Amino acid sequence: MPARLAHVSPAPSPRAPAEVDFTSLRRRVDAALEEFLEAQARHPVDACLPPLVDVVREFVEGGKRLRPLFCYCGWLAGGGEPGGGPVAKVGAALELFHTFALIHDDVMDRSATRRGRPTVHRVLADRYHGKDREAAARFGVNAAILLGDLCQAWSDELLCAAGERWRRRAEPVLHAMRTQVMVGQYLDLAGEWTEDALDRSWRALRHKTAGYTVERPLQVGAMLADAGPEVLRLCTAYGRPLGEAFQLRDDLLGVFGSPEVTGKPALDDLREGKPTVLMNLAWRRAGSRQRALIRELHGDPALDEAGAERLRDVIRRTGADTAVAELIELKAGQALAALDDVTVPAPARTACADLARAATRRTR
Amino acid sequence: MPARLAHVSPAPSPRAPAEVDFTSLRRRVDAALEEFLEAQARHPVDACLPPLVDVVREFVEGGKRLRPLFCYCGWLAGGGEPGGGPVAKVGAALELFHTFALIHDDVMDRSATRRGRPTVHRVLADRYHGKDREAAARFGVNAAILLGDLCQAWSDELLCAAGERWRRRAEPVLHAMRTQVMVGQYLDLAGEWTEDALDRSWRALRHKTAGYTVERPLQVGAMLADAGPEVLRLCTAYGRPLGEAFQLRDDLLGVFGSPEVTGKPALDDLREGKPTVLMNLAWRRAGSRQRALIRELHGDPALDEAGAERLRDVIRRTGADTAVAELIELKAGQALAALDDVTVPAPARTACADLARAATRRTR
Repeated sequence: MPARLAHVSPAPSPRAPAEVDFTSLRRRVDAALEEFLEAQARHPVDACLPPLVDVVREFVEGGKRLRPLFCYCGWLAGGGEPGGGPVAKVGAALELFHTFALIHDDVMDRSATRRGRPTVHRVLADRYHGKDREAAARFGVNAAILLGDLCQAWSDELLCAAGERWRRRAEPVLHAMRTQVMVGQYLDLAGEWTEDALDRSWRALRHKTAGYTVERPLQVGAMLADAGPEVLRLCTAYGRPLGEAFQLRDDLLGVFGSPEVTGKPALDDLREGKPTVLMNLAWRRAGSRQRALIRELHGDPALDEAGAERLRDVIRRTGADTAVAELIELKAGQALAALDDVTVPAPARTACADLARAATRRTR
Repeated sequence: MPARLAHVSPAPSPRAPAEVDFTSLRRRVDAALEEFLEAQARHPVDACLPPLVDVVREFVEGGKRLRPLFCYCGWLAGGGEPGGGPVAKVGAALELFHTFALIHDDVMDRSATRRGRPTVHRVLADRYHGKDREAAARFGVNAAILLGDLCQAWSDELLCAAGERWRRRAEPVLHAMRTQVMVGQYLDLAGEWTEDALDRSWRALRHKTAGYTVERPLQVGAMLADAGPEVLRLCTAYGRPLGEAFQLRDDLLGVFGSPEVTGKPALDDLREGKPTVLMNLAWRRAGSRQRALIRELHGDPALDEAGAERLRDVIRRTGADTAVAELIELKAGQALAALDDVTVPAPARTACADLARAATRRTR
C-alpha cells in the first residue's frame, strides 16, 4: 500500500498556478468525514464505539486526500462545476475506504508507524486491560482487523449518504476498484523469487496504485459528472501511467528515502521483504553473490542500517534504481502527453498536469 | 462468532410439519451465490482471482444459510409471497457477508478447522511457494484477511445485483447490522477478568448473535416485504431472546459439545479463552482456588483434554452450566410467547416456532 503517496504535495507548483481550489475541496472532504464519524459516535449501538471512532478520527487526520483529489480532477474533466458537488461526500467515502485498506495493510506488514504516528494496531494494543504483552499485541491486531472491517462497511454507508443519484453513478467503478485493491494487495504479499515474481510485482503495482489510487478515483469523478467516453478514456490513458510512476517513485523512496520525508521508518520496506518492481529488477540483474546477499538480507526483520546500506549498494550496482528512475520519467511523460489528446476544461488540465509533474519530483 | 449455529437443523420437527419450503429457498440462495462467484471467476481482473474464488466457493458450501433463512421468515411474516422473491439474492448477500465475518473470525482466533474442514488461512498457507513454514503461515493469514475483505466488498456487490428497489429497502437495516457484528466481535476479544467482563460478554452476545444472526436478518426480510411496525416489533420481540438462546447454547456446546456435532475441535473455545457468558458466570461464582484454576487453564493454547475436564468440572461445580441451560429455556420461551402476540401468516409462525424449539434442543 503506497504510504508515501500521501506525501505528494497537492499544492500547485509556483510557476504554473492552478486554477483548482484543492484546499477548499480538502476542507469539504474533511467536514463530510467528521460529520459522518461524529454521527457514529453520537448515537452508538454500544458504549465501546465512541473511543473506537476517536481512533479512526485521529488516523484519518494525517491523510492528504489523494483519492478525493483525483476524483475531483475526474469530475472537472467531465465538465462538473468547480464547487465539486457530490465529490466531497463521495471523496470522503473513498477516504474512509482507504482508511480501512491502510489499517489492514499495517496489520499485514506489522508496521509500527504510519504518517509518523503509531499504527492503529499499536494504538489499540495499548488499550488492552492486562499486563501480558503478547496478549496485548494480539488484542491490538485483532481489534485493528475489526476496526478496518468497520471502516469498509462505513465507507459504503457514507456513499449512501451522498444520495441515490450519485451513488448509482459511482457504484460500478467502485465495485471494480474494491476488487482491484484486494487483488493488488494479494499480489504484493511477500513471496519467493520465482520466475514470475517480476510479472507479479508489475501486476500488483497496476492494480493497487495505477488502478486503485489514480485511474478508478478519476473514473468515479468522471462518472459523477456523467462524462462521455472520451473523458473516460482519458482517465485510463492519463491515470494508468501516472499511477505507475507514483508507485515506482514510492518504491524508490522506500529504499532510498529519508524517514522525515516518508513518515515511515527507512528500513520498513526492506525488512518486510516487499516484492517491489525495483527489488525484482535488481534480482533479475544480480549475479550469484549479489543474489545470495539479497536472499540473506531482504525480508530480514532484524535488518540494521549497515545491512540496508549493503542492499542499497547491490541495487545501485545492478542499475535497477536508475532503470526505475527512467521508467518514472517515461510514465509521467506518457501521462502528460495523454492530456494533449483530448479537450478538457482548463482547470482539470492544469490540475492533472501538476499532479503528473509532482510524481517525478523528489525521487530521493 | 457462532460457528455451531450453522448446525442447527432448519428442518421442521416431525410433529409439526412446516408449510415453509426451506429446502427450495436454500437451493435458490446457493444458486445466487454460485452465479455471482462464477461471474467473478469468468471475467477476472487478474489471473490470481479464479483460484481465490474457488477457496470462497468451497468454504461457502458448508454453511446452513441460517441468516437467509431468518430473512425468509421476516419476509413471510411481513406478508411476502411464499416464493421468496428477492430473498434469494439478498440472502446470498447476507451469506457472503457472513463468509467474510467467519474468515476473519478464524484468523483472529487462529482456528485450524471450521465446519470440519481446514480454515481459509490454513488453505491459503498451503499455497505459499516456498519452504519457510513461518512465512507460509504469515502468508496464509494475510491472504485470508484480504479474501475476507473481498467477501465483504462482494456482498455489497451482490446486494446491488438484487435490484435497486430491494437494496434500498434492506440497506438501513444492513448498515446497522454491519456495525453491530463488528462491535460484537470487538467485545468478544479475549480480555482480563475485569469487573465489567460479564456485562461485556452479554453485550457481545446481544450484538453478534441476537442482533447480527437473528433480529437483523428477520428485519431485512420484513423490510423487503414492506412490513408494518407490528411485524418489525415482532422481529425484535422474537428475534432477540431467540438469538440469545442460540448463543448461550453455542457457548455450552463450545465447552461440553462433541466435535462431531459442532465441526470444531472440542477444546478451541477453552484454548482461545473465549470470554463467554458461561465462563463469566463460572468466574463470578468461583472461589479463589477455582479462580486460580480458571486463570491457569482458560486461554492456554496448549490445553489438553485432562485440563479441559478440570475446567468443565469447575464450571459444573459453580452451577454455571445449569444456569445457562435455564436461561436458554427462558429465552426460547420468551421468543415463542412473542409469536402469540401478533397476527402473522401461518407459514411464518410455524417456521419461527420450529426455529425457537431447535434452539433448546441438543444442549449437550
